[in-house]
Amino acid sequence: MVGIGPGGAGDRTRRAEAAIAESQVVVGYDRYLGYVADLVAGKELVSSGMRAEVERCRAALDRAKAGEIVSLVSSGDAGVYGMAGLAIELAHAEGAGVAIEIIPGVTAATAAAARLGAPLMLDFAVISLSDLLIPWETIRARLEAVAAADLVVALYNPKSTKRVRQFEEAVEILRGYRPPETPVGIATAVGTQEERLSLTTLAKVLEEPVDMRTVVIVGSRLSRVIDGWFVTSRGYTI
Amino acid sequence: MVGIGPGGAGDRTRRAEAAIAESQVVVGYDRYLGYVADLVAGKELVSSGMRAEVERCRAALDRAKAGEIVSLVSSGDAGVYGMAGLAIELAHAEGAGVAIEIIPGVTAATAAAARLGAPLMLDFAVISLSDLLIPWETIRARLEAVAAADLVVALYNPKSTKRVRQFEEAVEILRGYRPPETPVGIATAVGTQEERLSLTTLAKVLEEPVDMRTVVIVGSRLSRVIDGWFVTSRGYTI
Repeated sequence: MVGIGPGGAGDRTRRAEAAIAESQVVVGYDRYLGYVADLVAGKELVSSGMRAEVERCRAALDRAKAGEIVSLVSSGDAGVYGMAGLAIELAHAEGAGVAIEIIPGVTAATAAAARLGAPLMLDFAVISLSDLLIPWETIRARLEAVAAADLVVALYNPKSTKRVRQFEEAVEILRGYRPPETPVGIATAVGTQEERLSLTTLAKVLEEPVDMRTVVIVGSRLSRVIDGWFVTSRGYTI
Repeated sequence: MVGIGPGGAGDRTRRAEAAIAESQVVVGYDRYLGYVADLVAGKELVSSGMRAEVERCRAALDRAKAGEIVSLVSSGDAGVYGMAGLAIELAHAEGAGVAIEIIPGVTAATAAAARLGAPLMLDFAVISLSDLLIPWETIRARLEAVAAADLVVALYNPKSTKRVRQFEEAVEILRGYRPPETPVGIATAVGTQEERLSLTTLAKVLEEPVDMRTVVIVGSRLSRVIDGWFVTSRGYTI
């Protein structure tokens, strides 16, 4: 289970690259296989489209059961909205009896944060707005709790072409607790050639383009913009 | 500002290694310089002890102002309880006028998660129990909010030799919302030669050794132990 980082080769770890190099088969969502194109020459690739997570994972386990070394790649960290948990669950359900190793990577939240400045310097939450697998009411309650506790929050999967209401509701919840000038950072396709970054405020965030590849980071009351960087202050005396 | 990952060379990114290779000066806390010993031959090292963050950061900026390429290293991700935010604040306060680049790394929470299984598969919070810079009442309120919202939580800096009460209080708060059998993962010095891992429960967690190098991950109601792995289920039908 290999986390390949947000997309660029520079943000991959040595272990991730070594694992792919050792593998006979590399399994992943089409786009993620593209991110590691430089590493997979001569290997068998098994790709699939979005939302085919279970199928992809089963394919990887089947090949591993057959005695092959298999890398199942996730973008970012394999254990953050990635494939690591599903692989463990599925291997157990099927009695696959294969050895699993989980290789962490730079997750989208911290990769986005680094491009924008240092908004995650202290306590934060990571919340996905996708309600495919979790009821929206649960996600709403989490947003309320995190907003009230003044945690910086990184929103994953904020919007898809079919799902737009959730992001508007999330912003509305956060506006109930934080001032309109609260900095908000928007990072799309971080580390790839399509990377887009912007820095806005809670008042204006709905004017910005946001999609499934975007991470939206909403500051806390300790966040501000300094020399164009989005920073949450840890409170050192300087 | 270079995040060097949790400690082992394998968890470093290419960009982190390249940045250190390009630098004339490498600044950091003693232990973190030890983690990159294989990369710093022939470079000037500026090290300092714990809690000398402002001094360390000022030293790095001074050398950059003098025209040198400087790496200021943080363990994990430079932007998660690291030095990135302080560097931006200090550069601004001093009108340093130096170019800053922030290089993200694998943060301790996801590195620990990968060793233990996949506890951070969905929404989670990262909270430090150190009250050196943040009032304990604020941290308590965050723990209550996160506990009530059933977020998995990664606790950084759970305990020091002088500060033990906070971890006990945090556990007490979480016990108020989650069953005693909730899985808890404990990972100390992840990725280093002193790495120690254990998997316990919310009922028994206070029996385990925990220190400043430990990340404690407390599961949600969707977390369980499968084949010895700590997993939070995303809810796929398998």
